[in-house]
Amino acid sequence: MTWTMPAEFSPQERVWMAFPRVGNTLGDDAASADLARDTWAAVANAAAGFEPVTMVVDPSAVAEARKRLSNEIELVEAPLDDYWMRDIGPTFVVDEDGALGAVDWTFNGWGANAWATWERDNRIAQTVAALAGAEHLPSPLVNEGGGIHVDGEGTVLLTETVQLDPRRNPYATKERVEWELRRTIGATRCIWLPRGLTRDYESAGTRGHVDMVATFAAPGRVLLHWQNDPSHPDHRVVREVREVLEQATDAAGRRLEIIELPAPQTLRDEDGFVDWNYANHLVVNGGVIACGYGEPEADERAAAILGEIYGRDVVTIDARPILQRGGGIHCITQQQPTSVTP
Amino acid sequence: MTWTMPAEFSPQERVWMAFPRVGNTLGDDAASADLARDTWAAVANAAAGFEPVTMVVDPSAVAEARKRLSNEIELVEAPLDDYWMRDIGPTFVVDEDGALGAVDWTFNGWGANAWATWERDNRIAQTVAALAGAEHLPSPLVNEGGGIHVDGEGTVLLTETVQLDPRRNPYATKERVEWELRRTIGATRCIWLPRGLTRDYESAGTRGHVDMVATFAAPGRVLLHWQNDPSHPDHRVVREVREVLEQATDAAGRRLEIIELPAPQTLRDEDGFVDWNYANHLVVNGGVIACGYGEPEADERAAAILGEIYGRDVVTIDARPILQRGGGIHCITQQQPTSVTP
Repeated sequence: MTWTMPAEFSPQERVWMAFPRVGNTLGDDAASADLARDTWAAVANAAAGFEPVTMVVDPSAVAEARKRLSNEIELVEAPLDDYWMRDIGPTFVVDEDGALGAVDWTFNGWGANAWATWERDNRIAQTVAALAGAEHLPSPLVNEGGGIHVDGEGTVLLTETVQLDPRRNPYATKERVEWELRRTIGATRCIWLPRGLTRDYESAGTRGHVDMVATFAAPGRVLLHWQNDPSHPDHRVVREVREVLEQATDAAGRRLEIIELPAPQTLRDEDGFVDWNYANHLVVNGGVIACGYGEPEADERAAAILGEIYGRDVVTIDARPILQRGGGIHCITQQQPTSVTP
Repeated sequence: MTWTMPAEFSPQERVWMAFPRVGNTLGDDAASADLARDTWAAVANAAAGFEPVTMVVDPSAVAEARKRLSNEIELVEAPLDDYWMRDIGPTFVVDEDGALGAVDWTFNGWGANAWATWERDNRIAQTVAALAGAEHLPSPLVNEGGGIHVDGEGTVLLTETVQLDPRRNPYATKERVEWELRRTIGATRCIWLPRGLTRDYESAGTRGHVDMVATFAAPGRVLLHWQNDPSHPDHRVVREVREVLEQATDAAGRRLEIIELPAPQTLRDEDGFVDWNYANHLVVNGGVIACGYGEPEADERAAAILGEIYGRDVVTIDARPILQRGGGIHCITQQQPTSVTP
């Protein structure tokens, strides 16, 4: 049996999300929590305009979820710590016959962050796998969905600071990570980026998820977050990443075409340099759900690039309440590809 | 594809070993190193009386190996750190059609011991797999061959202090370990022993390998190291282990018959309480290679029990130079089961 992870731009069955419950990292401020929940719901409602959406909801948050979500969105109750479905949900794969599998990575709060809890979230992938009718494929590798991006043809983008993080996989080597990614998601070419964005790396974040900086728009085509202001530390980071991408070849032996996604103008918030980016979007059937930052010019430029590259309708949602908590629209969603199973 | 690890008492193709090189944990004392090498060779030569033996030898130690080993033993050169083939070699498995697989556990010096190095040893399983013509089955789980004993029917004996060791698999859970053992060696029932022997646990050893305390002699039949002297801390340990075994059922739903293997009389050496035991033997085709401790009465009693239980010829070898370094005859050998592949 060979499992392959289809690219995000391939046909999808459904999008999975997790609704924020009170407590944990949602924060105690009621207005801020409300705004966050509105944003999660806005992403779900937008995605539901393109394909089915299932929202996993902690039992304590069902009423809050129901009143915000359109009726067509399916609600499923399960205990949750947080709400980053990209990272806690399974990575869906298909076999040669198109049957559905669900890779259940070991999840440990993005490298055992002191602020994180993960006992419930480490179990949610198995729940989603069962609900999706997918074969459960557990992996001892500590990893998250946001730590990998694929072209669907065997190429994987990942960062050294995530899979080789001593607080995730202290005894892993590149070779052993690559073996496990070959087994689980059919990776035949791993392109190791040196790191991710600065805030995501430094502020007890994910230590550098690839989905905050680059993604495949098609085989051979990479969308890369681009910071043109030299006063922002990511100015240097994206150039390092670009250099690696320029040297790389993919699983098919191709050089990569790199398309830049210029950052919004905002450089800092009250916590320091922001990691606002347009790379962290969700691709759905016929659409793209893109992050907005309340900057009409930059938001529209990004939407135009994404619309052009994917040839799909772009819906932009103000994602600042998500970014404020450490991720983007891609981080709170997980697509299930079309398969013969469900 | 379903892989199953055959029991050690099943028909074998070959025994693999690794010859000690100068340096690392062999020690600097020439006479002691010589004696150790004589002992490794004696085990190999004894096993070769029953079935083929391949000795992996560091390039620096070829002459020393050659002069001690009988001509029928195959020598293979490969870089080595140490010489515990049970732990660094692959765990051989077979699929439904009898094809051979080789599980390549992640090896990290038995929980990243300060005295250990493992860069070469972490690669040796892949070398052995290739030489054996086995399918290479890498696992991200940090584990060693000495950390598991199977009945060949889905039951595994293992210890909580090894697979759940925070210096081996800091983010593992029992459930995730069991999932990985099901995938790799076909485990359908894991019997978790609370720990292993005292010295093996306390002196920066393996933190409690099951193969120092108990093994399957047949499905439903466990041989258990037994310490009857209450002044030895293992007096309590083996009773704890016995209690768990008495409560357990195996993969087929059977209760386990427990056969005690009384310890030798020696309780201490210059480093403290010893972990001398007769459970750490190697089963070969028609034979058992058993540890001796220079105690004729105890050694003969153990040989008689092993001969009776297995119905095979028992060859006893003075294993004190092995025990002095932290393991026994089982720890320095790795059997390859009969399969249709090679």
